[in-house]
Amino acid sequence: MSAAPASDTSRFDPNFTQHVIDSIGPNTSPRMREVMGSLTKHLHDPAREVEPTVDEWMKGVQLINWAGQMSNDKRNEGQLLCDVIGLESLVDEITYKKASEATTFVTRSAILGPFFRTDHPIRDKGATISFNTPDDAEVVYMNGRVLDAKTKKPLSNASVDMWEASTNGLYKQQDDNQVDCNLRGTFITDANGEYAFYCIKPTAYPVPDDGLAGKLLDLLDRHPYRPAHIHLIVLIDGYKPITTQIFD
Amino acid sequence: MSAAPASDTSRFDPNFTQHVIDSIGPNTSPRMREVMGSLTKHLHDPAREVEPTVDEWMKGVQLINWAGQMSNDKRNEGQLLCDVIGLESLVDEITYKKASEATTFVTRSAILGPFFRTDHPIRDKGATISFNTPDDAEVVYMNGRVLDAKTKKPLSNASVDMWEASTNGLYKQQDDNQVDCNLRGTFITDANGEYAFYCIKPTAYPVPDDGLAGKLLDLLDRHPYRPAHIHLIVLIDGYKPITTQIFD
Repeated sequence: MSAAPASDTSRFDPNFTQHVIDSIGPNTSPRMREVMGSLTKHLHDPAREVEPTVDEWMKGVQLINWAGQMSNDKRNEGQLLCDVIGLESLVDEITYKKASEATTFVTRSAILGPFFRTDHPIRDKGATISFNTPDDAEVVYMNGRVLDAKTKKPLSNASVDMWEASTNGLYKQQDDNQVDCNLRGTFITDANGEYAFYCIKPTAYPVPDDGLAGKLLDLLDRHPYRPAHIHLIVLIDGYKPITTQIFD
Repeated sequence: MSAAPASDTSRFDPNFTQHVIDSIGPNTSPRMREVMGSLTKHLHDPAREVEPTVDEWMKGVQLINWAGQMSNDKRNEGQLLCDVIGLESLVDEITYKKASEATTFVTRSAILGPFFRTDHPIRDKGATISFNTPDDAEVVYMNGRVLDAKTKKPLSNASVDMWEASTNGLYKQQDDNQVDCNLRGTFITDANGEYAFYCIKPTAYPVPDDGLAGKLLDLLDRHPYRPAHIHLIVLIDGYKPITTQIFD
């Protein structure tokens, strides 16, 4: 008797996954059923593909538990882990895509969610957004124009929402040493479609290397640096929003 | 403009997932590349399918972190979570399938792994395995025969390895109040293929309801009881092993 090839997933009970999904009861919310049904289905596939040993599976479980144990108010190792496997970027892409498909500003804001802090103060053109400038930061002037993609005409009254991390890699929400709305702001384009502000030059910063995300990057032979970037969302009524990151 | 249907996953960058997988460096172990490549691929699919909002995704991350925070030496919430979504049973199925495909006992034992405690003491026919019988336990006599599946002839010298949880739902490894190898043992079938032992009647026990696994079962409108069962592995040279659970 010879072992079947590892890729032959048909060796396993073809009804098992559906059986687990069908165990979801009638009083579950439709969204919960949708999310957990999809997650269950897709989490079973890699198990059949790579055929983890019990040891490998238990090590995976311990690593996931460890990620939780390292997390606290200031550090979210689970989120870092999602970043490493591309899930955070994918959720961003999905969010921006849905926001660009939304027909109203209200719907759009609801999709972008509170994580994006749509309540940024509106600042004057040319103002600074750096209120706790660290010694190792380089203050730079950033400016640009918002144009109609087809006519290339400047668009005034567009809202340019931006945020960036400080040189320690932390956004305001993660760093008590930054004042509220530090390195964040909303700018309204002028008659020439221009916006401008002083900010700090974004710096590449490493994912912390003492947790699961850092360990995983090491095991995957990947460098721990996230590229330096500034987040931007440009909104104007009658146009699809643009949500993007500017790299130095 | 109308929003695309949620199921239209082609709206998203078709190269993104492969890009993340391709970021794995050349010095990664082949197994790590295989496992994380498969996991990355399959974890992106449900995101495109259910299009989580940032809020939903962050709630999921917090829940996973919480599972880790509730885990300790005696409690493994990550493992319970795998149990709820069927991943533990699936890994069991994969393990048993691979063990049954293995051509030698050594290979088989390696696949089953230390989690299965293959070092159980060999006990005499009719012996008890309950050394810390709780007040609410019912001691029962379990017996059976091991037969050749084709000829129906009894097989002597088969090893019947069994283990069960106590009435508190805990296996020895999880419960310092149980002596070593309580509710576990290996029995060798006699000339008539018979094995027999005294054990406690297995009881249904709930998954702890104060952690993520319990919360998830509640959200999924599923009851928290795992059915009462006894684990059995039957091994004899020249035959495929049988690994099973006996339900009351």
